[in-house]
Amino acid sequence: MPSWKCQQCGFEEDLYSRYYWKCPRCGSPLTLLYSVSGEITGSKNTWRRYSGFLPFIPEKYRGEGLTPVVAEKTGTHSLLFKLDYLNPGGSFKDRGTALAIYYGFKMGFKKCVVDTSGNTGISVTLYSKLYGLDSVIVMPREAPEGKKKAIRQLGGLVIETEGRIGATKTVQDYISEPGYYYVAHLWNHIYIVGHATIAYEVYEDVGVPDYVIAPVGSGGLLLGLVYGFEKLRETGRASKVPRVIAVQGYSVQPVYVAMYGEALHSEPSTLADGIMVSNPPRLAEIVSAIKRTGGEVVLVGNSEIARAHKALWEWGFTVEPTSATVLAAYEKISKKIPENSSVLLVLTGSGLKTL
Amino acid sequence: MPSWKCQQCGFEEDLYSRYYWKCPRCGSPLTLLYSVSGEITGSKNTWRRYSGFLPFIPEKYRGEGLTPVVAEKTGTHSLLFKLDYLNPGGSFKDRGTALAIYYGFKMGFKKCVVDTSGNTGISVTLYSKLYGLDSVIVMPREAPEGKKKAIRQLGGLVIETEGRIGATKTVQDYISEPGYYYVAHLWNHIYIVGHATIAYEVYEDVGVPDYVIAPVGSGGLLLGLVYGFEKLRETGRASKVPRVIAVQGYSVQPVYVAMYGEALHSEPSTLADGIMVSNPPRLAEIVSAIKRTGGEVVLVGNSEIARAHKALWEWGFTVEPTSATVLAAYEKISKKIPENSSVLLVLTGSGLKTL
Repeated sequence: MPSWKCQQCGFEEDLYSRYYWKCPRCGSPLTLLYSVSGEITGSKNTWRRYSGFLPFIPEKYRGEGLTPVVAEKTGTHSLLFKLDYLNPGGSFKDRGTALAIYYGFKMGFKKCVVDTSGNTGISVTLYSKLYGLDSVIVMPREAPEGKKKAIRQLGGLVIETEGRIGATKTVQDYISEPGYYYVAHLWNHIYIVGHATIAYEVYEDVGVPDYVIAPVGSGGLLLGLVYGFEKLRETGRASKVPRVIAVQGYSVQPVYVAMYGEALHSEPSTLADGIMVSNPPRLAEIVSAIKRTGGEVVLVGNSEIARAHKALWEWGFTVEPTSATVLAAYEKISKKIPENSSVLLVLTGSGLKTL
Repeated sequence: MPSWKCQQCGFEEDLYSRYYWKCPRCGSPLTLLYSVSGEITGSKNTWRRYSGFLPFIPEKYRGEGLTPVVAEKTGTHSLLFKLDYLNPGGSFKDRGTALAIYYGFKMGFKKCVVDTSGNTGISVTLYSKLYGLDSVIVMPREAPEGKKKAIRQLGGLVIETEGRIGATKTVQDYISEPGYYYVAHLWNHIYIVGHATIAYEVYEDVGVPDYVIAPVGSGGLLLGLVYGFEKLRETGRASKVPRVIAVQGYSVQPVYVAMYGEALHSEPSTLADGIMVSNPPRLAEIVSAIKRTGGEVVLVGNSEIARAHKALWEWGFTVEPTSATVLAAYEKISKKIPENSSVLLVLTGSGLKTL
């Protein structure tokens, strides 16, 4: 039976517990512990195939995951684009949300709430409806209009706040009321084990790459990738874990600062609205994961993001600007990557909703 | 070696020919003939798996096809939703375009042109860029702004015309110039064999359904579905072909008129902008295909489409209004469908681009 554990103070709790995201003793993010058999079995059309890597399988399926990998050769590297913007809610967040909302449903909740820059709001509304939960999405007024419209059309209630920090504050009013499941995607370890499915799919489609480049806001994607590739190694399926290149923008760079001790300033990076998380709860884990893989943090700015965004569209990848940070980062560090390496670039969110 | 044949007058031509869409003798749409082995082999991550059903496999891959199937039980039926709006260009058209643009590239063209209500324009621009072709997309001024923006961002040139009929007229100016590959998706049989991949994927994922409901504009989707399911039967893989329910809107209903001899008038159906094709070149083939399967034509209008569109979003299917015609049609005829039948509803286009 899976259980929650605080890696800081040792607090433990069963799977279905009111303490599923934050340790009630020391305030650290909790970790979901469960046995990973490493078995991969059954037809390749839902995550049932990856039951051996997941804590539970949701009852309902909406087309999450199993997204394409597209390979492009450059002169020196094999670039592997993971088209995760082709998830049903238009972003990789559906991987975590499909599990996290099912968990809230199993706990008996009828309403859920989340603070988000946008994509998680679409995802949470989509899966909440599926299980009959009402959803309240607290998000910054400046978030792209398309994201708000999508949430409303999916049947969610949008509450607009002053900035991403305002959203984090406002969500507290809901959490303190009884009956609300707080999705807590910046904390909830279920998101990390959900995002890890990217690693299992890539492993099956093209093998374990030498490098992975991923944008980092809360770090859920990066931690999921490292979790997944490490589980593949632990279960004897793979012999290596890719080096992880974490991408942040100059405007909000807590992971860079935590890695290298000081900030690096240049132009703003406001185009990458999806990764402007100034205080990621799992910051120490993110730094540890990057270091374990021998990876690094790369910062990018608006002019680089805009150029990479244009290039991605003209290559046929209809992504949002935040997703273009990975190509911008690749262009900055490609000379440091050894010849003939394979490099996985996770394309995280659809640009169709922000046209 | 595949070849083109006119089923009306017997005209024949090799695969790589300037006569690939319209018979130069009698003006009928041409058919692509090639041997179908029915073999399905290799990993399930690109269409290479379906080489035994396709005339050729494009060199490049952009994530087309292999979309999820989501099952929902109603009281009496098993509804199977094919999430084809999760294609890279946001619609099922990518299936045909991935093959059709590769064909134009192999013919040596450097430029292509198409007249479209929108989705084909996105798809054609996306695949043209991939092979280094310039694309000119001729489309009605009234088409959704999001579709035009997507085409421009992908690097295509949008030419706006008065209505869908204006587009068909304007495209003639380009075709008469040398050097332009006319994609001719309303005629080009390559689209039909491309769309047939839906049938192979559904067959592998959930088996052959009892019914298929598909929106019909030019009829390429419907003809592709029937082609695919008939090839599965011809090659001994399946024992039946589903009954096909063709959906049109009250505003533009040539298939209904051809089937039943007279029009049926009610409210307008302008929300279904993707299927307003008043003169489909393959009309006779469409009628013949529907009749062969024991199928029928169902008409829907704006109030039914709007209701079905809202319901689909709240079920988590982020489709455009045209795609909602299939649910509207199902609701109208569900009482006529025997209990315990499985019903495939093809969800054709993403609604994220028209938020």
